[in-house]
Amino acid sequence: MIKAGIVGGTGYTGIELLRLLAQHPQVELTAITSRQETGRAVCDLYPSLRGRVSLAFTHPDKAPLAKCDVVFFATPNGVAMGEARTLLDAGARVIDISADFRIKDIAEWERWYKVKHAAPELVAQAVYGLCEVNREKIRGARLVANPGCYPTAVQLGLLPLVEADAVDLDHLIADAKSGVSGAGRKLEQNLMYSESADNFSAYGVGGHRHWPEIRQGLALAAGREVGLVFVPHLTPMIRGIHATLYGRIVKEMDFQELYEKRYAKEPFVDVMPAGSHPDTRSTRAANVCRIAVHRPKEKAGRGDTLAVLSVIDNLMKGASGQAVQNMNLMFGLAETMGLDQVAVVP
Amino acid sequence: MIKAGIVGGTGYTGIELLRLLAQHPQVELTAITSRQETGRAVCDLYPSLRGRVSLAFTHPDKAPLAKCDVVFFATPNGVAMGEARTLLDAGARVIDISADFRIKDIAEWERWYKVKHAAPELVAQAVYGLCEVNREKIRGARLVANPGCYPTAVQLGLLPLVEADAVDLDHLIADAKSGVSGAGRKLEQNLMYSESADNFSAYGVGGHRHWPEIRQGLALAAGREVGLVFVPHLTPMIRGIHATLYGRIVKEMDFQELYEKRYAKEPFVDVMPAGSHPDTRSTRAANVCRIAVHRPKEKAGRGDTLAVLSVIDNLMKGASGQAVQNMNLMFGLAETMGLDQVAVVP
Amino acid sequence: MIKAGIVGGTGYTGIELLRLLAQHPQVELTAITSRQETGRAVCDLYPSLRGRVSLAFTHPDKAPLAKCDVVFFATPNGVAMGEARTLLDAGARVIDISADFRIKDIAEWERWYKVKHAAPELVAQAVYGLCEVNREKIRGARLVANPGCYPTAVQLGLLPLVEADAVDLDHLIADAKSGVSGAGRKLEQNLMYSESADNFSAYGVGGHRHWPEIRQGLALAAGREVGLVFVPHLTPMIRGIHATLYGRIVKEMDFQELYEKRYAKEPFVDVMPAGSHPDTRSTRAANVCRIAVHRPKEKAGRGDTLAVLSVIDNLMKGASGQAVQNMNLMFGLAETMGLDQVAVVP
Amino acid sequence: MIKAGIVGGTGYTGIELLRLLAQHPQVELTAITSRQETGRAVCDLYPSLRGRVSLAFTHPDKAPLAKCDVVFFATPNGVAMGEARTLLDAGARVIDISADFRIKDIAEWERWYKVKHAAPELVAQAVYGLCEVNREKIRGARLVANPGCYPTAVQLGLLPLVEADAVDLDHLIADAKSGVSGAGRKLEQNLMYSESADNFSAYGVGGHRHWPEIRQGLALAAGREVGLVFVPHLTPMIRGIHATLYGRIVKEMDFQELYEKRYAKEPFVDVMPAGSHPDTRSTRAANVCRIAVHRPKEKAGRGDTLAVLSVIDNLMKGASGQAVQNMNLMFGLAETMGLDQVAVVP
Repeated sequence: MIKAGIVGGTGYTGIELLRLLAQHPQVELTAITSRQETGRAVCDLYPSLRGRVSLAFTHPDKAPLAKCDVVFFATPNGVAMGEARTLLDAGARVIDISADFRIKDIAEWERWYKVKHAAPELVAQAVYGLCEVNREKIRGARLVANPGCYPTAVQLGLLPLVEADAVDLDHLIADAKSGVSGAGRKLEQNLMYSESADNFSAYGVGGHRHWPEIRQGLALAAGREVGLVFVPHLTPMIRGIHATLYGRIVKEMDFQELYEKRYAKEPFVDVMPAGSHPDTRSTRAANVCRIAVHRPKEKAGRGDTLAVLSVIDNLMKGASGQAVQNMNLMFGLAETMGLDQVAVVP
Repeated sequence: MIKAGIVGGTGYTGIELLRLLAQHPQVELTAITSRQETGRAVCDLYPSLRGRVSLAFTHPDKAPLAKCDVVFFATPNGVAMGEARTLLDAGARVIDISADFRIKDIAEWERWYKVKHAAPELVAQAVYGLCEVNREKIRGARLVANPGCYPTAVQLGLLPLVEADAVDLDHLIADAKSGVSGAGRKLEQNLMYSESADNFSAYGVGGHRHWPEIRQGLALAAGREVGLVFVPHLTPMIRGIHATLYGRIVKEMDFQELYEKRYAKEPFVDVMPAGSHPDTRSTRAANVCRIAVHRPKEKAGRGDTLAVLSVIDNLMKGASGQAVQNMNLMFGLAETMGLDQVAVVP
Repeated sequence: MIKAGIVGGTGYTGIELLRLLAQHPQVELTAITSRQETGRAVCDLYPSLRGRVSLAFTHPDKAPLAKCDVVFFATPNGVAMGEARTLLDAGARVIDISADFRIKDIAEWERWYKVKHAAPELVAQAVYGLCEVNREKIRGARLVANPGCYPTAVQLGLLPLVEADAVDLDHLIADAKSGVSGAGRKLEQNLMYSESADNFSAYGVGGHRHWPEIRQGLALAAGREVGLVFVPHLTPMIRGIHATLYGRIVKEMDFQELYEKRYAKEPFVDVMPAGSHPDTRSTRAANVCRIAVHRPKEKAGRGDTLAVLSVIDNLMKGASGQAVQNMNLMFGLAETMGLDQVAVVP
Repeated sequence: MIKAGIVGGTGYTGIELLRLLAQHPQVELTAITSRQETGRAVCDLYPSLRGRVSLAFTHPDKAPLAKCDVVFFATPNGVAMGEARTLLDAGARVIDISADFRIKDIAEWERWYKVKHAAPELVAQAVYGLCEVNREKIRGARLVANPGCYPTAVQLGLLPLVEADAVDLDHLIADAKSGVSGAGRKLEQNLMYSESADNFSAYGVGGHRHWPEIRQGLALAAGREVGLVFVPHLTPMIRGIHATLYGRIVKEMDFQELYEKRYAKEPFVDVMPAGSHPDTRSTRAANVCRIAVHRPKEKAGRGDTLAVLSVIDNLMKGASGQAVQNMNLMFGLAETMGLDQVAVVP
C-alpha cells in the first residue's frame, strides 16, 4: 500500500482527492493537513465522506508527511514551493496540484504569480504532469507539476494540430468556459450563488495565469513559439470545462483521423465520432477528456477554420483525477487504477 | 392608443410581449391567439400576469386581428408568411418575431428552413428590424422582420469593425452562448432541466439558421461577402446571450473610440469602459445590449486579434423588447417608450 | 418629489431599492452611502444600473441624509438603531429594512441579535411595516420597521386562519424555503455557488431570528401567544420564498372564502383559485404575495390539516418592494405607485 | 457472474442502473431493451458510458431476457405487471423499479394508477424492497417491488418513531422536496429548464401516488392505520430528495438514541449527530440516506413537535442504488457490493 498525504485538504481539489483515494485499492490515506481545521474530523467538514474517511485534519507542522510515499499539494499557489524540498529529501514523492512548478521560465512565473519563486532549482527538476505528453518522464519523476484545468482541456484539444503543424500557430484561439468550482473554494463575491447563478460572463481577458502555461506546452509540442488568444468565461455550473478551440488550417489532412490516431491508446482521452457535440456532464466526476473535431462553414463552400470542442471535469482530469493518474504512473501501478468512475448523468 | 394583437402568445416571446405591452402607456392589448389554449385566460396559463392581463386566448380564426393597428407574430417559423398578407391588406402593420421575413435570398431561406416560402413578395417588402441599422426604414415600414437573438448580439458586436473595414472580413468568429429560453418553449429532450442544468455544450456547429442571417447583415454593412464561423452553445441559465467575437485586425485605430462613436446616440446599446466584462445578468429583463472591446495578448507584445464581448437578454433586445422598439418607431412614438425596465439583479 | 436616501446601498436590498426608486415617478434619489465603496459610481459596482443611476456612493459621515425626506436603511442589523435618532430629529422619516426595530420585546431582541439595543425608545415608537395589518398606523409613522422576508410570507399566509381562530394556534408549522439572496450579499461558505447549487438543506432548525418576529405578529393577530415550529431551508435559486404552512383545523368554515375576503382589497396579495400551486417565479421581481389554500388528505375521508402555500420574492414583497409600499403610505401617495412591475417569467 | 437485463433502459433509473452495473464486480450486463432506440448503441444515447457499456438497445420482443438471472424493470408504470410473469416462469428474478407491485391493495392501486392491474396474484407474491424493513424476505424473493423515491426518504425518516409509537400517528406531516430527475425523463412542460430553474413550487397537494405507498409502509410498522399529510415540492436541482418530517410527540424518550439504535447496523442509513442539517449533495450519486433528528422550539420552553430531516439521492437510494442493494440480497452477495461510490461533492 502506498502511504499518501495531502497538504491543504479543505479545498475542492482536496475533497476530490479524498473521494478518489478513499476508493483506490493501493492507497492508504495517512495524513491530511489544514491550519484552520486542525483537529477536526474530515467527515465533519465534508459529511459526504462519513463512513469513508476517518482521518482528522492535522496541523502542517505535526503531520507525518515525511513518512508518506507520496504527498499531494492541494494548496493555494505559493505553498508547495516552500515545502516540497523537505519532503523530497525525506524520500517522499510530490505531486503539486497548484501552479508552483508548472512554468519553467522563472521570471515569467514570477510575473504572473506576483511573488518571488522559493525553489527555482525544483522547477527545473519537476516534470509537467500531462500524461498524454510526458508519460515516460512521469514514471521516473519525484516531483510532478500537475497541469491546470484550462491547460489540460486546451492542450489536449490542440496538441494533434500543433504537433502536425496543421494550423496557423501564430493565431490560435481558445474560448474556454468553466464551472464555478474551477476558481476553488474561495470566498469571492463573483463566486457567490446569487452572483454567478443564471449569469454568464468572460473574465480575465486582459491576462490569465493559465495563458503562459498553455503557451509553454504548445510551444514545446510545436518546437517554436505559438500565439494564443485565451478568453476564459464563468458558467453557472459546478464542474466542467468546455474549451472551444479555433485554428486556421494551413495543411490539409483528415483531421478526424489525426485525432483518433493521436489518442488511440490513451485511456482517458475520448475522440468522439465526427459531428459530435460533447457535453461537460458526460465527464462529470470522471477522469476523461472528450474531444470532437469540426470544420464549420465560413462562406459557401468548405471553411478554412477548425473548431475543436474539448471537455473535462475540472476537478478530475483537470486536477485531482489527473493527479492520481500521475501517482499511478510514478508508482508503477496500472494507469487507470482507482479511476474507473463512470460519469454521473443526469 | 395603439391596438395590438399577438398571434401565438403561449411561447416565451409571447409572454415577454405581454409583460411589456401590459406596461406600455400607448398600447391597448386587443387580442391574443392560440389554437391549443383557445378560451383559456392568459393569466391561467401564466399566473405571473394575474391582475395585469385580463384577455383570454382566442382561436386564430376568430380573433379580431384585422382591426388591430399592429399584429405581432410570436409563432414558430412558417406561420407568419401565410397570414401576414391578409393583415397587411386590412391595414394592420405586422412585426414578425419569427424568421419568415428575415432573409432576402428566398432560396437560401428555403435551404435552412426546409419549406417553400409562401410569400416571397413580402420578403422583398419587409424591413429588417435592427433599429441601430435600419431606423429610418423601420419608421416607414408596414412589415418588420424582427432580428433573431444571436443575430442581434453578434451584429451589434461586430458592426463597428465591419463598417470600418478594420478586421479580416473573411474570417470572423462568433463564439456565442445562449440561455435555454432561446430555444423557445419547446418540449425537446436537451432542453429539460435534468439535461441542461449543470451542463454545457456546443450545438449546431455543422450549421445553424442564424448563420445566414448574420452573414446577410454583415455583408450589407461591409458592402461585400463576409466569412463567419458561428459556434452556438447552450448554457445553464434561463435568459441571456453572451457573444464572444474575434476578428484579426487589418487596420489600426482606437477601437474603443470606434465603438463609443458608433453607438453614442443609441438608447439601447451600451459601450462599456475599456477592460470591462459585461455579464448577461446586467441585461436581464431589460432592452439593452452591452459591449466591451478587448485586445488580448497572443504572444509577448500586442496581439493582432480583437475580442469583443456582446451581451443581451435574448427575450428582450433579442426578441420582444426589440419588437416593441420597432413598434415605437413605426408608430412615431418615443423609441424608448415602455422599455425603461431596469435589469433585474441579482 | 420625495428626496430619498439609502444607507448601506451595496447589498441586495440596496440594489433592489435602487432599481425601484430609479423608476418611481415621485422620488428623487438623493444620496446613497457605503463605507467601503465611497466615491465609486453606483453603476460601476452594479452595471445593470448604467444610464439609470448617476449617483456615487458617499461616506456615511458626509452624506446629506438629514436633508432627505425619507432614509432607507439597507444595512446589516445593528446599524439603524444607532443612526435613526439623528435623522428623525432632523425631520426625515426612516424605513429600516434591517431587523433593528421589529421586535417590541427588547430582551427578546437582544437574545436573538446578541447585542445590546442602542435605542429601545425608538422600538416602542416604530411601526411594524406589514401594510396588510398596519396600514393606517404606517400612514402616520415616522419610523417603520420593514418586516423580514420569511415573516412576510409566513404571516400573510397564516393571518386569516389566526384571526379567525380556525386552527390550533399552539402547534402551527411553517416549513419555509428561500432562495440564496435571502441571506444577503455576505461572503459565507454555504452561500457560494459551488456549495448551494444543485443542493438543498434545512438550516437553523435550532433557532432562527425570524421565529420571534413571526410569533410576535401572529400573537398580536390572535390576541394570545401562539406556538410555531419554523424550519427554514436553502433552495438553489436566487430569489423567492415558498412557505408551506400547516395548521390543524379546530373550527370548520369555507377556508377559500376566508382568504378571498381577507385579502379582497389588498393590491399586493393574490389569493389564487382553489387547487393552485403558486410558484415563486410568478412573483419574481414583482411586489406580490400569492397564496393558495389546500386541505390535503390524511387518511381516507377529509383531512384535519390545512396546507397553505405562500410565495413572495424575498427582495420585493419580502424587503425593498414592501419598503417602497411603506414609503408610499407614509407620504400619502397611491400605495401601488412605482410598484407595477410585472413578474419576470421565464 | 449474474446475468442482468434491463427493460426500458433509456430513462434516468435506466442509465443509473447502467452506471452501477457496469462497475459491479459480479454482474454481466446481458441485455437492455428499448422500443424507440432499438439497435442504437447505449453509449450513443448516453456518451457518459462510452468505453464502459458496449451493449446496444434490443427490441423487447427479441431481447434474451428469459436467460437472465435478474431482470430490472426501469419502465413507466404499467409495463412490468404485463411482463413479469413470463420472466419469473423462465426462472429469472425480477426487480421492478416502477410502481406496479408496491401496493398490496389492488383497488387502491387501481384508483391511483388509473388502469386495471394485470397481475394481482403477483402483487401478493412481491416483496416490498425496503431493505431496512424486509431484508430477510428480500433474500428469498423472486419478485421485488423497489420502493419509490419519496417513500424511501419518508419511511426511513419516520420508521423509528412509528415503530416506537412515539408520535401522534394520526397526524404525521411529510413536507418533501425533490430534484427534477425524480419525475423521470419525460417531456413535460414544467420539467423544462426554463420552467423549473430558479423556481420553486409545491405540486400534487391534492393527491400524489406515493402517498398510499408511504401510508401502507408506515401502517405495517405501526400495526394500525396512520394519518399522513404529504406535500411534495419541485426544487431546481437535478438529483436529491429532502424530506422534512413532523410528528407531535406522545411518548418522551431520547430520540437521537432511538434513531441511532434503529439504524446501528444499517450500511446505507446514516444517523447524523444531533443538531446536523444534512444536505442532499452529501448523498449525490451515493446509495445512502442521511437523517437528523431535531426538536425545534414552538414557544418558550421545549417544543412538542419533532422535525426529522431525511435526505437521499432519488436515483440511488431512491431507485437504482436500492435496486442493486436488493439484487445483492437476492443473490447472496455482500449487501454493499458495487455500491461503494462516494458522494460527489462539490
